[in-house]
Amino acid sequence: MVYVIKVGGNVIDNAVLLDKFLADFAAVPGKKILIHGGGKIATRVGDKLGIESRYVNGRRITDADTIDVVTMVYGGLVNKQIVAKLQAKGCNAIGLTGADANIIPAVKRPVKEIDYGFVGDIPAGNVEAAPIQLLLDAGLTPVFSPLTHNGEGQILNTNADTIASSLAVALGAHYPVRLIYCFEKKGVLRNVEDDDSVINLINRDNYQTLLAEGALADGILPKLENAFAAIDNGVKEVLIGHADDVRKNTTDAVAGTLIC
Amino acid sequence: MVYVIKVGGNVIDNAVLLDKFLADFAAVPGKKILIHGGGKIATRVGDKLGIESRYVNGRRITDADTIDVVTMVYGGLVNKQIVAKLQAKGCNAIGLTGADANIIPAVKRPVKEIDYGFVGDIPAGNVEAAPIQLLLDAGLTPVFSPLTHNGEGQILNTNADTIASSLAVALGAHYPVRLIYCFEKKGVLRNVEDDDSVINLINRDNYQTLLAEGALADGILPKLENAFAAIDNGVKEVLIGHADDVRKNTTDAVAGTLIC
Repeated sequence: MVYVIKVGGNVIDNAVLLDKFLADFAAVPGKKILIHGGGKIATRVGDKLGIESRYVNGRRITDADTIDVVTMVYGGLVNKQIVAKLQAKGCNAIGLTGADANIIPAVKRPVKEIDYGFVGDIPAGNVEAAPIQLLLDAGLTPVFSPLTHNGEGQILNTNADTIASSLAVALGAHYPVRLIYCFEKKGVLRNVEDDDSVINLINRDNYQTLLAEGALADGILPKLENAFAAIDNGVKEVLIGHADDVRKNTTDAVAGTLIC
Repeated sequence: MVYVIKVGGNVIDNAVLLDKFLADFAAVPGKKILIHGGGKIATRVGDKLGIESRYVNGRRITDADTIDVVTMVYGGLVNKQIVAKLQAKGCNAIGLTGADANIIPAVKRPVKEIDYGFVGDIPAGNVEAAPIQLLLDAGLTPVFSPLTHNGEGQILNTNADTIASSLAVALGAHYPVRLIYCFEKKGVLRNVEDDDSVINLINRDNYQTLLAEGALADGILPKLENAFAAIDNGVKEVLIGHADDVRKNTTDAVAGTLIC
């Protein structure tokens, strides 16, 4: 089993949470990949540099100055600090972007109503699995920052959830893959006010029912869509759970929500 | 032959020079590694962030804020832009620091008269050649930023010339290696005022004579010491030459100064 594990910005932004998560991640046995979000550090650095952060529908608008900031912060500061910390915990990490070894060639999002700027979308089937296999088979643990490239010299800002599902799908052709989205809830909740209302299993059938009942929070829908897309394209299992449960979620005693 | 090529800050800081250099580097056939310096971008970004750059004897003092800046700028912005540009030129680059795959474990420089802060020195024999061989043999081109780590979670700022010679020595046990220092002169000059006074060959014998004559500029001495150290430790050839001549210096028609 290869574990493809995405950890979100809330963990990245908190040194104590991050350290605990990385210790748990380092203890996951066998082949694994980490994909990290960016967190608020890019916004703080951008603010100090006098570069305004702009969002439309929750997505960062990535102009020329902003792509430099996220390349610095996601690809440099966050990624290399995670690599150094994993090394200290005995995990032989190697930090990457989608530009490295041409693993994730992407396309700049076309301008329609909104110009998202230097944001990359990943065409289906575009991920190069071979370099990742090379690293995994050598006992290395790839750590991806949420950056890709357009093949013409331009780095692109790319959603970390999407990178995670794209990598999981590419590896699904070669290994059984469990894709795990770690976030700040214990799983997909039936009632967002109640942390113990975790829905343990979501499949296509009850997903439609849950949608019809309005039982799912808007924020979780893109994650679920990514999850189903991964399952439809050869990923064995997708789990959505708390960052604290990553160690449990890499065993048979699953916490959180299993999508299949 | 493996070419281990270091390019300095003056090329990194100039978009036109950098693009020309990367086109030439991409055209070098066979196995190769690039090590880039930092250039002045870190100073500019640090200035904007209100972090003062301090130097003693030409070496940057790397305090806690400064190591974050150089991790961002060298490991993120500069390294990933070079990787994306090499990819666009058909060179399958993979950007690394010495923390990645634990390739260059270093030690924080001991505090004596001067506290250099988070600066790493590389103990002899400390470089892990195996992950580099893995990448080279898979047709990948490692691109190193001048960063290492202490194995305990701390990134360290490390001189790019030293990283280049350490990598060359580690690979010298497995391949014939030519180490090439690219800079803004045509080679080691007998007269720094005269660009055409290149000394084509320096060996131990004439090095002592040149030193005694006072024919060598102070700035070139650390490069020459690095060069002799590399030769003494199994590197086949060291070349010091102009960044414009990198293509020629990866053939038999050598320009610049050959150290042997």
